[in-house]
Amino acid sequence: MAPILLNCMGNDHNDYIKQLVQVKNPNLDTMEEDILYHFSLGTKTHNLPEMFGDIKFACVGGSANRMKAFAQFIHKELELPGNPEEIIDICEGTDRYCMYKVGPVLSISHGMGVPSISIMLHELIKLLHHAQCRDVVLLRLGTSGGVGLAPGTVVVTDKAVDYSFRAQFEQVVLGKVITRSTELDEGVANELLQCSSELQNFPTVIGNTMCTHDFYEGQGRLDGALCSFSHEDKLEYLRKAYDAGVRNIEMESTVFAAMCRVCGLKAAVVCVALLNRFDGDQITSTHDVLVEYQQRPQVLVSHFIKKRLGLIV
Amino acid sequence: MAPILLNCMGNDHNDYIKQLVQVKNPNLDTMEEDILYHFSLGTKTHNLPEMFGDIKFACVGGSANRMKAFAQFIHKELELPGNPEEIIDICEGTDRYCMYKVGPVLSISHGMGVPSISIMLHELIKLLHHAQCRDVVLLRLGTSGGVGLAPGTVVVTDKAVDYSFRAQFEQVVLGKVITRSTELDEGVANELLQCSSELQNFPTVIGNTMCTHDFYEGQGRLDGALCSFSHEDKLEYLRKAYDAGVRNIEMESTVFAAMCRVCGLKAAVVCVALLNRFDGDQITSTHDVLVEYQQRPQVLVSHFIKKRLGLIV
Repeated sequence: MAPILLNCMGNDHNDYIKQLVQVKNPNLDTMEEDILYHFSLGTKTHNLPEMFGDIKFACVGGSANRMKAFAQFIHKELELPGNPEEIIDICEGTDRYCMYKVGPVLSISHGMGVPSISIMLHELIKLLHHAQCRDVVLLRLGTSGGVGLAPGTVVVTDKAVDYSFRAQFEQVVLGKVITRSTELDEGVANELLQCSSELQNFPTVIGNTMCTHDFYEGQGRLDGALCSFSHEDKLEYLRKAYDAGVRNIEMESTVFAAMCRVCGLKAAVVCVALLNRFDGDQITSTHDVLVEYQQRPQVLVSHFIKKRLGLIV
Repeated sequence: MAPILLNCMGNDHNDYIKQLVQVKNPNLDTMEEDILYHFSLGTKTHNLPEMFGDIKFACVGGSANRMKAFAQFIHKELELPGNPEEIIDICEGTDRYCMYKVGPVLSISHGMGVPSISIMLHELIKLLHHAQCRDVVLLRLGTSGGVGLAPGTVVVTDKAVDYSFRAQFEQVVLGKVITRSTELDEGVANELLQCSSELQNFPTVIGNTMCTHDFYEGQGRLDGALCSFSHEDKLEYLRKAYDAGVRNIEMESTVFAAMCRVCGLKAAVVCVALLNRFDGDQITSTHDVLVEYQQRPQVLVSHFIKKRLGLIV
């Protein structure tokens, strides 16, 4: 199909190819069929270019309910026709992830942790590639523990770092560990910070985000089923993290940053801090307060999308 | 509450204490309240001993729909009163996990990957501890890729091994990597194998299970968004795995084995192989075939539970 599209683009073949979502796997183009198993979609059973070709923003987050709420929210914000309550889960054939499409916005859940989001990202990047999408920005909207921040503060990630505060992700490939950079797009992060300044009472910082592989021991929580360290040990680790520029801790950002970077996709991470980890481990805020906090990344990303679409000057 | 219970037990104080589900965290008993955030349960808001004190089997699996189906299935198998269709999700306050209680059986989903199951296990072990449960067996019922096995074969895990085929799990604690053993309970595994021989046409093997942190590059799949190796490289890695006793590949067994072992809980992993990875990467079986395969671990575990409860001689 590429030649037909290229004809419309005149001489800018290379620029055009660059903007298309790229996979880094030469095998894919020779496969007769590609089943995106965890989405319950496939290249033979679904017309992916028709279904997804106009996507410009792929928004991802851990919770299925939250990503459905985001889809309904962005539907209202973009003033699209139709009833946002009647939105359909495109992945209804599976319960691994949910996916909603609202105009040029895709809203997808990814579960918790690096392996879970990694499966989703492989299949999302393949989907965007098969659908011949161009100029797509990926945005992760999440929750996190704050490091020295008031609860409710939104963190736009500068660098996604590992447990030793290094901006890298270790990926095992056929039994060997390789290291990938986790730098995110500086321009998109700055645009998001600018958006936050245009909203009222919207506490937002840019900082490093530490990504761990569990919620308890890896994040220095004293309240897990296993805990072998003291309160003072915990505080010392959090202070080291703070000194390394870490402002929040979550569980998906490194692989998200690494995979987007390898595929040349612009990406950003926007997480709200549900608590200040210097003050405790348990999430004790009321349900209503937590619901309001979780809407903040949605409000910020919605503002960003509307500006990009020219709906706000 | 412990003294009251101990009175009933006469002199076997130590044995009794041993059978109680133990946490390895001295902080927990001094906490005024423990909020099991990802279950939407807590020690102040819920009477955990009353709700869960009689649990003897905690069955876990990745998919929420599948663990609901298992709860309904075991309800029928145990011939319990009430309508299995009206079973209620105990974690309905959150969409992170789902949980169903059917007599002495708990059925819980854990999502995909080590971090996701690790959060669930911390909170499950705390729940069983707070509820003063005794003699609990944990069983993971999953799906997996087979290594040299026909699709549909059930694998009872001997040892859970990492990408280098070592029976260990690396856990980061406050920025330091510690190593935990992943040996599972041999007695329970042998009981499960015996159960499989009592069922008709039920292909089952005991073998090592490799646990990876992603579905594509880590498992040597050629069909991800990223792939930098050849078909021959893949086959060589799978052959090495086979020679090390690996018969299937999934994404949760090492941390499941390690955490259960540290807490002295007997545990087993029972996964069906959906495909033979020597023959391909994509899961191409029809929906109906996959549904039947996914029922096999449920049938085997149900048989095991009924034997343990004395419902089958």
